[in-house]
Amino acid sequence: MPKKGIEEIRERMLQSAKAGITSAYKSEEYALIQAVNAYMETDKSYNLAYERLSEWYGIYYPEIRISSPESLAKLAIAMSNNGADAGSIERALGNAAKAEEVKKKAESTIGRKMEADEATAVTGFANQVLSTAKALGELDLYINGAAKRVMPNTTYLTDHMIAAELLSRAGSMERLATMPAGTVQLLGAEKALFKHIKFGSRPPKYGILFKLPEVTNAQREIKGRIARAYATKICIALKADYFSKNFIAEGLKKSLSESLKRIKEKPIKPKEEMRRDFDRGYQGKMQGRRGAGRGRGGWKQGYRKR
Amino acid sequence: MPKKGIEEIRERMLQSAKAGITSAYKSEEYALIQAVNAYMETDKSYNLAYERLSEWYGIYYPEIRISSPESLAKLAIAMSNNGADAGSIERALGNAAKAEEVKKKAESTIGRKMEADEATAVTGFANQVLSTAKALGELDLYINGAAKRVMPNTTYLTDHMIAAELLSRAGSMERLATMPAGTVQLLGAEKALFKHIKFGSRPPKYGILFKLPEVTNAQREIKGRIARAYATKICIALKADYFSKNFIAEGLKKSLSESLKRIKEKPIKPKEEMRRDFDRGYQGKMQGRRGAGRGRGGWKQGYRKR
Repeated sequence: MPKKGIEEIRERMLQSAKAGITSAYKSEEYALIQAVNAYMETDKSYNLAYERLSEWYGIYYPEIRISSPESLAKLAIAMSNNGADAGSIERALGNAAKAEEVKKKAESTIGRKMEADEATAVTGFANQVLSTAKALGELDLYINGAAKRVMPNTTYLTDHMIAAELLSRAGSMERLATMPAGTVQLLGAEKALFKHIKFGSRPPKYGILFKLPEVTNAQREIKGRIARAYATKICIALKADYFSKNFIAEGLKKSLSESLKRIKEKPIKPKEEMRRDFDRGYQGKMQGRRGAGRGRGGWKQGYRKR
Repeated sequence: MPKKGIEEIRERMLQSAKAGITSAYKSEEYALIQAVNAYMETDKSYNLAYERLSEWYGIYYPEIRISSPESLAKLAIAMSNNGADAGSIERALGNAAKAEEVKKKAESTIGRKMEADEATAVTGFANQVLSTAKALGELDLYINGAAKRVMPNTTYLTDHMIAAELLSRAGSMERLATMPAGTVQLLGAEKALFKHIKFGSRPPKYGILFKLPEVTNAQREIKGRIARAYATKICIALKADYFSKNFIAEGLKKSLSESLKRIKEKPIKPKEEMRRDFDRGYQGKMQGRRGAGRGRGGWKQGYRKR
């Protein structure tokens, strides 16, 4: 074959490989995964920064406790610039009664006096907290839109953040949509799951799905069952999102709420009975595995035995 | 005693207790500790955010690699708003040749096409990276000033960030100034130290002092000795900073550089000889402790033995 021919083929091969990469990234799910990862990380930084700011602020005004990061940051900025000025405190907190209380406490504070360059540093850090809050808002806005486009059924059943987190854990819609319900139920609980397999601790009941208000607010004994019911319906919704692209979530939600009603109406077994049932089933299943036959607390026993 | 008298006394006691707290926080060291903690945490968030941004950006332009967080953020903002426009890329990178290269790569990219709302989300996140960089700069400015005021001698010997980190680890100037040199040398290496005590691994040679360029750039065999020389002089400097408030750092720095010269000129023992000496001394010292007599690698052995 002449040299020019080979080079031409090579060129065409490269072209098609590049086109393959481009088309693989064509789906919006990859942007969504990046966005939700960025959101979760920024959220962690945000909480740490808030705690740090409230500790720092505490050496000047130990009496003042503000539980909202944004209010604290705004208050810190206002008071660093204008001192205990009633108007600016009220503008920061948006609440006249609370502002009055804060002003009173600030005037008789036992904390350190804030020097000018300390005020600049605190203001800078408080601004950082505020801009992190703004970035979180922007990311949330995008995630909301993208999750509704990529997985409309799942988002309808749960909410955009939980749907996006499930996607991020799975890595792609293809993998997520082909997962069995039990895997979806435990996405995000990998650590507890492997502890169970390796050391025989109790198995986890939910991972990311714990964030569903229905699960969080349920009675302890039925939390796992509710998570399971959600997982089965989410699995169907995911398949619709990825394969058929039909919107079937309304029917799903209806049948889900019926299942939830059934679960809640079923009488709950007394604790001792449940434990006995669990240990019996568990001892049978765990035969031959590491840590097997130790019953509940097996992980701790195995861990302590050095 | 009449009731009024008791209440008066109680009031006066409370007053004096409050005054005690205020005067305990009078020293600037507490503000400095808060600032350096905030700096270290923000720095961690900053690095994580940069990595996340470069991953996210990588799905659109996998060919473009930028190692500076700020340049990457500026580039992401410029290209999200104006596409691959030569002028705005150059303004973001501040380097015409690099901008030309980036523009070329961006035009023939194999990555995903950036949709409008993805561009908004990326811009928002890149702005967050930039504002974090700004906050870091402001904190550094304050730490620089405060460290020079609180510990002028120590700052002169090392630098403001290392001096402030030592203070933050120790918790107060009083505790730091009364520490022995060996403790100062290992501040920040607590984990390695306790591993050594508990499992018999090799002892750490330095903690925070590893950040000194003199230590970082030294030959492996003499790093520990250089850290030790620094720690002894830092200890003297700290005592001057806390007790006498004299500026003696120039003399200290001179005698320190002489010690460093001596250490560097001393011939280095061959590796085998050093190991033998270490193991011999070590086995004697570790008698009667857990993991004793196991020699090097003791920690691993102890850990594996379940």
